[in-house]
Amino acid sequence: VKFELTILGSAAATPAYGRFPSSQVLNIQDQWFMIDCGEGTQMRLTDFHIPRNRINFLFVSHLHGDHIFGLVGMLTSMSLVGRTQAFTIYAPEGLAEILEVTLRISQSHLTFPLHVHVIDTTEHKAIFENEILTVYTIPLKHSVPTCGFLFKEKPLLPNFIKEKISEYNIPVAQIPLIKFGADFVNEDGTIIPHSELTIPAPPPRSFAYCSDTMYFPEIVPHIEDVDILYHEATFTTEQLENAAFGMHSTATQAAQIALAAKVKMLVIGHISARYPDAEATLAEAQKTFKTTFSGLDGTTFSVPYRR
Amino acid sequence: VKFELTILGSAAATPAYGRFPSSQVLNIQDQWFMIDCGEGTQMRLTDFHIPRNRINFLFVSHLHGDHIFGLVGMLTSMSLVGRTQAFTIYAPEGLAEILEVTLRISQSHLTFPLHVHVIDTTEHKAIFENEILTVYTIPLKHSVPTCGFLFKEKPLLPNFIKEKISEYNIPVAQIPLIKFGADFVNEDGTIIPHSELTIPAPPPRSFAYCSDTMYFPEIVPHIEDVDILYHEATFTTEQLENAAFGMHSTATQAAQIALAAKVKMLVIGHISARYPDAEATLAEAQKTFKTTFSGLDGTTFSVPYRR
Repeated sequence: VKFELTILGSAAATPAYGRFPSSQVLNIQDQWFMIDCGEGTQMRLTDFHIPRNRINFLFVSHLHGDHIFGLVGMLTSMSLVGRTQAFTIYAPEGLAEILEVTLRISQSHLTFPLHVHVIDTTEHKAIFENEILTVYTIPLKHSVPTCGFLFKEKPLLPNFIKEKISEYNIPVAQIPLIKFGADFVNEDGTIIPHSELTIPAPPPRSFAYCSDTMYFPEIVPHIEDVDILYHEATFTTEQLENAAFGMHSTATQAAQIALAAKVKMLVIGHISARYPDAEATLAEAQKTFKTTFSGLDGTTFSVPYRR
Repeated sequence: VKFELTILGSAAATPAYGRFPSSQVLNIQDQWFMIDCGEGTQMRLTDFHIPRNRINFLFVSHLHGDHIFGLVGMLTSMSLVGRTQAFTIYAPEGLAEILEVTLRISQSHLTFPLHVHVIDTTEHKAIFENEILTVYTIPLKHSVPTCGFLFKEKPLLPNFIKEKISEYNIPVAQIPLIKFGADFVNEDGTIIPHSELTIPAPPPRSFAYCSDTMYFPEIVPHIEDVDILYHEATFTTEQLENAAFGMHSTATQAAQIALAAKVKMLVIGHISARYPDAEATLAEAQKTFKTTFSGLDGTTFSVPYRR
């Protein structure tokens, strides 16, 4: 059962060295979610064999161009292949106006319903919920209203131990109740406790996306223990002044956040065009937080169930 | 002295098979001009080593997304490297509104003056002129207001034959006048005709861009004898109905236009996503017009001076 993050673009601000602007997709139990949609995202979906038409939700962290300029092109391309499934966007105030004006003037007609929900980037709250997960906003600190997103699987039901059916003569109709927590009472009135009939479910998995932001330890309580933390690391410490000026983070700062939040894995990205590759930021982050990885374009990170 | 067309994107409507949406650059005598600016154009400039900051003019044929969705990203990237040189756009009515809304809401601040001139797509007239060339609109027939562009070098001055200086004792100060057409009168009153002192200049070179359009023979008088005709060929004849429905051309129709206009070279592109490569459209066009080439992403076509 999948929980897989794929990086579509790892560049900050402007594409460079083959890195495209920010976009990521998350596959949770075969449901696809997109986060941010920089220019060229639709090409990246093709490059990395992501099933474009199975993506129904987009979460937008903020409205800087390198996080949204691929959106209208992706939507119009979806229309060209006759998409009918609704597409739903959660984004800070303003995106709908860009979409409305651009679609109208370019005379692009969408073949599917488009829903745009305005999110409040200053609150930590649940903004989306379905049968498998809840998505929460994470207020970040950047030069425009910005929030991250926490994707958290819902608790799974425990696994019923099949061998117990014959052992206690349990009617099949009872199994769902037992999985939901009921004990089993057999014919002679003996109570077989729920805990003897099931194996606890693996803990739910989680992913936190934190970009763009300066070093902002207030996010730590919201991202504690996540399986994957994606945190921007636009610069190395050598560029501390540039990081502060642009309200971005250094690799060390990203790693400090990961350490404080005791996350299981840190993925860094949003790499400045001044770096030809990801070596400098990765080496720096790993000094503070060992299980750091570079989230370069096309990289996939999987989270297995942990027992 | 260069006259070079480079194709940045050869896809119709939606990127496919590594083909990006429409954009081209023209290098005339080391001045760079861009035509259309589909999504990903800024990446293509990097891919094909085009000096982005030497492009000062963009000509937009029409406002369909696959011809303009790379523009805001390219402009903001130019700002990120501190461009100060003005950027001037010629486009049909409406583009300025998309730019204004998108730049404002994404809080993108350009570091250079941006000028947007509205063009009338229904007239054939000169819209741009400088010391080396004139650019004319070419009305096309598409589902939204659309025009092509004719880029025509200005006539060059004839070459002065250096050996004539000593032969007739010509003062150096006279040479510019002779190049401009004056005869030379020597000390004893003999008239040395201009034609004896100069070699005629090579004929000016020209490029016509015709996309998007259905088969529209009315354009022929505007593009006669051009060195390179770029004409869209979205489909093969097999897809004649689709071509008519989308107001696009087939490869045969593009070739018929080239033949009627007696152009020296036809470049076809704007290839539908239904074709994995350019073989079908190219083979079809070459049956009608032999000197046809596929304008795939990254291809460059040069026009030498012809004597």
